[in-house]
Amino acid sequence: MPSYIAFKGVPNDYPKKSTLSRPDVLTSDYVLLKVTASGLCGTDLHYRHADMVLGHEGVGIVEELGPDAKHLKKGDRVGWGYATDSCRNCIECLQGTEVFCPERALYGTANLDQGSFASHAVFREAFLHKIPDSISDEAAAPLQCGGATVYTALTDSAKPNETVGIMGVGGLGHLAIQFAAKMGCRVVVLSGSDSKKEEATRLGAHYFVATKGKSAADLKDVPKISRLIVTTAAQPAWDTILPMMAPGSRIYPLTVSPHNLEVPYMPLILTGISIVGSLVANRPTHRRMLDFAALHNIKPVTETYPMTEEGIKTAIQNLENGKVHFRAVLLPQ
Amino acid sequence: MPSYIAFKGVPNDYPKKSTLSRPDVLTSDYVLLKVTASGLCGTDLHYRHADMVLGHEGVGIVEELGPDAKHLKKGDRVGWGYATDSCRNCIECLQGTEVFCPERALYGTANLDQGSFASHAVFREAFLHKIPDSISDEAAAPLQCGGATVYTALTDSAKPNETVGIMGVGGLGHLAIQFAAKMGCRVVVLSGSDSKKEEATRLGAHYFVATKGKSAADLKDVPKISRLIVTTAAQPAWDTILPMMAPGSRIYPLTVSPHNLEVPYMPLILTGISIVGSLVANRPTHRRMLDFAALHNIKPVTETYPMTEEGIKTAIQNLENGKVHFRAVLLPQ
Repeated sequence: MPSYIAFKGVPNDYPKKSTLSRPDVLTSDYVLLKVTASGLCGTDLHYRHADMVLGHEGVGIVEELGPDAKHLKKGDRVGWGYATDSCRNCIECLQGTEVFCPERALYGTANLDQGSFASHAVFREAFLHKIPDSISDEAAAPLQCGGATVYTALTDSAKPNETVGIMGVGGLGHLAIQFAAKMGCRVVVLSGSDSKKEEATRLGAHYFVATKGKSAADLKDVPKISRLIVTTAAQPAWDTILPMMAPGSRIYPLTVSPHNLEVPYMPLILTGISIVGSLVANRPTHRRMLDFAALHNIKPVTETYPMTEEGIKTAIQNLENGKVHFRAVLLPQ
Repeated sequence: MPSYIAFKGVPNDYPKKSTLSRPDVLTSDYVLLKVTASGLCGTDLHYRHADMVLGHEGVGIVEELGPDAKHLKKGDRVGWGYATDSCRNCIECLQGTEVFCPERALYGTANLDQGSFASHAVFREAFLHKIPDSISDEAAAPLQCGGATVYTALTDSAKPNETVGIMGVGGLGHLAIQFAAKMGCRVVVLSGSDSKKEEATRLGAHYFVATKGKSAADLKDVPKISRLIVTTAAQPAWDTILPMMAPGSRIYPLTVSPHNLEVPYMPLILTGISIVGSLVANRPTHRRMLDFAALHNIKPVTETYPMTEEGIKTAIQNLENGKVHFRAVLLPQ
């Protein structure tokens, strides 16, 4: 039986190299991919000690196809992000709204060995997205989760010419700034200090607000935000942020926290603010995101690391220490 | 100078009768109304000790018009709810989105004497809504705030044929059931016990769920809710409620609380649930609500009380004790 290399989470340690068997014969519409790049995402840190292959920002080349695969061919270059691979009969998948899949819990069990920290992966054709030619493997990888996540929040019930607030300039934030700017939005970046002002401005920010130590009164002249994308790990200081929001505006807390969301109730009601749960992208949105990124030459700012035990360890350490500028990509050796 | 009677909030007591002067001459598009009915709303209880005329579910007859009034004429029957009366140059008012008016704070000061617990009131023509002939004064009054509030939440970003959950069968809930049922929605009513099951079903509920003592597992067969209207004063038990919500669903907490909204974070993100701040209706929505109520013969279940000090006192006491079935209306004597 042929085999491939994969890097799995290990309790109390950094991911270790394993050798996994791959299917002799591909059934149905399963596709065998040779991985050419994988992003490292904050979510990988949450699962780094789980017994599963890490990585969900995969880019690769189609090597073999099952008999029911219809749209891809050998040599095609595709990307994939978080997607349920096992629930092919679920209505959420059939109608292309699978992001909020009620069977999502299966992802952690049925797809243990489908991560993109690997030499190869096997996925259903329906969950693979062709990468536009103008986007390199290295640039495409962080779009598969990071790009998909901010694009969904930016385009959900979107109106043209919104004032978009982006809280945090990091892996997600630096992509959100670029997408929002190219969508024609007025882009207001909220960051602790002024240290990232120059780079945020270069990426497309029209306003840059250093929030540390500022009160709502200090920030009253900032254009009112109609859509706030929260990309910081820490919960926002709502007493400062809510007065910056426009009537009828929407807040997207994108970073994952085990805690309760705790927001003052009255400003929410009186200003008609929505808090919107949002998660990566469903397939149509994912494909529009790739198309939009190609059209507007949106590129993640990346650092590359070798896809080896040592490279993964270094990348994880840098990400944990806030030293990645802005998104780490692993490249097979 | 002519005068009118009004019932104002009094510290540590029930509202008292006052005599207020009314303008000799109406300027601009101001309209003098003779009040024919006023609803009593939970929000009046919040302001019952404030130095202002209470009542914001007014119905009345046009008696006089300012020189710039263009659409109404003497004898027209109109309703009015919460609306900013003083900020005529504000963009929110000019574009008809005044519900989330940044100048809302003015309402409490500039319009102190504009409540509907009165013999007369003076309002701008632009904020008065003609009442369809088929709706009586008594039935029209609770629609001006209660009806407007639930209609906005039910029609905000609405999709046809939604499964609508209505938590609480009271002043707002019994209206929400009727509106949702007539919109063609699958209506799931959540109430503590079975005591209101028969009435909720008669009003249009398809499912009635007594939630007290139930766990999420007990309720797993209830159709998944795509839009939840929370009309209870107490915060929902989120651990029980969130698993009842459909992917991508919306929760409208309509009742006002001084506390924080505190919701588990992960289910919100993973199921893509939005918490939507919503408040009465802007003018176009208010008028569509009246039109819809007339078309479908939607009527509040009301109890009437005389608009006297004694009548107001009794109505307030009954509302505070949960004894109003379902909406109190004051009628001038």
